[in-house]
Amino acid sequence: MEVQIAVAKVSKYAVSESGDTLEVVERPGGGLSVVLADGQTSGRGAKAISQMVVRKVISLLAEGVRDGAAAHAASDALFTDKQGKVICTLNIASLDLNSGTIVLTRNNPAPVYICRGEQIDCIEEESIPLGTSRNVRPLITEIAIEPALVIVIYTDGLTHAGKRRGLPMDVGATISSIIEDQDPTPQVLADMLLAEAVSLDENRPADDISVLVLKVTSRVGDNVRRMSLRLPIDGIMR
Amino acid sequence: MEVQIAVAKVSKYAVSESGDTLEVVERPGGGLSVVLADGQTSGRGAKAISQMVVRKVISLLAEGVRDGAAAHAASDALFTDKQGKVICTLNIASLDLNSGTIVLTRNNPAPVYICRGEQIDCIEEESIPLGTSRNVRPLITEIAIEPALVIVIYTDGLTHAGKRRGLPMDVGATISSIIEDQDPTPQVLADMLLAEAVSLDENRPADDISVLVLKVTSRVGDNVRRMSLRLPIDGIMR
Repeated sequence: MEVQIAVAKVSKYAVSESGDTLEVVERPGGGLSVVLADGQTSGRGAKAISQMVVRKVISLLAEGVRDGAAAHAASDALFTDKQGKVICTLNIASLDLNSGTIVLTRNNPAPVYICRGEQIDCIEEESIPLGTSRNVRPLITEIAIEPALVIVIYTDGLTHAGKRRGLPMDVGATISSIIEDQDPTPQVLADMLLAEAVSLDENRPADDISVLVLKVTSRVGDNVRRMSLRLPIDGIMR
Repeated sequence: MEVQIAVAKVSKYAVSESGDTLEVVERPGGGLSVVLADGQTSGRGAKAISQMVVRKVISLLAEGVRDGAAAHAASDALFTDKQGKVICTLNIASLDLNSGTIVLTRNNPAPVYICRGEQIDCIEEESIPLGTSRNVRPLITEIAIEPALVIVIYTDGLTHAGKRRGLPMDVGATISSIIEDQDPTPQVLADMLLAEAVSLDENRPADDISVLVLKVTSRVGDNVRRMSLRLPIDGIMR
């Protein structure tokens, strides 16, 4: 099998720095975790918050701390620092090779979609962001790693897209239509979801948007791990 | 402009865990750093060393510490911990958007190639790994970000490829032949270099091999940042 992970990420219109932070860390027992945080508001202040949360979570995961405990610790640290005045959403998607599962940790009102073939489940149980109070519990979902599994995670910029024009995006329906038509790579799926949101915002995103897609394939290929990044730099050159 | 970064990474034959660790971190002032370390020997022990070095460097870079100082600190920490008995190579490639440069930090006998069009320069000034003594100095090279720049960085598995058969790989000549024939994406270049090395080792790599390629293109596209990862999991499933 092969796990493929793709991210597409854009800043709010006319803001150079995205308030969303996404990083990847290798887990000590094998496998890796993708950590995505969205700091309150946008621009530099939001970036500082989401970077702080991601750094905290990543350093704990690298030490072997469990995902839920790492999220909990980041929330307590944020609450202590900001006295509940600043909040931050958090999603962790971990490929845990010890248990053979994908572990999803969520402190984010935005739902997570889990697709198996054409069956699409929406995990939308109420979930509150980090930093809102003491003892913020993350929601944990554990799923066996199996071929044809697709998981879609995003920040609230995707759900806000089009709202100022009264044309909010139906994320589930959009995922469903893309998956029905084709067997998209995770990058194609992430790109199409982001493009739909940006189009609903008339090419001027009203918020930072990040889309993260994981896909498990039955592909038998070489044993090479690959990573690629593309980073447009004109807009943020100082 | 756009900066594209690609990585191809394989473990030593019959060893499930690569002793090489590569991670990416966003820099506080904008831009990002790619950190690659190769711990002495292979397997779990080497992995623990390279992970420790990468974690140390990344946490310092995230705090705004300069690349050279972060490498120096990681070397001191490793020397203190292991009394000079364990060494680890380190390369940092940073996209520094404040200065508009790519900053290359090297504590690795393996050279770095810098290509501009068909001109290929090899940076092979003597450079020693971290942890060998107190006061190990990294070599720093700073290059303006400009279109058609290609940088190739790798761990010593690439230079060792084929040596047991007396057919060592000529990395510079291989890069040159790939670049002359086509204008490869960084992923294609990384994949081809890795494939050549694995082939010289008769499909049984004698060491962990990691290849990192950065490319600057003049492409004018959307403002979307993209990342994709591919992770074969059969071999390392427990």
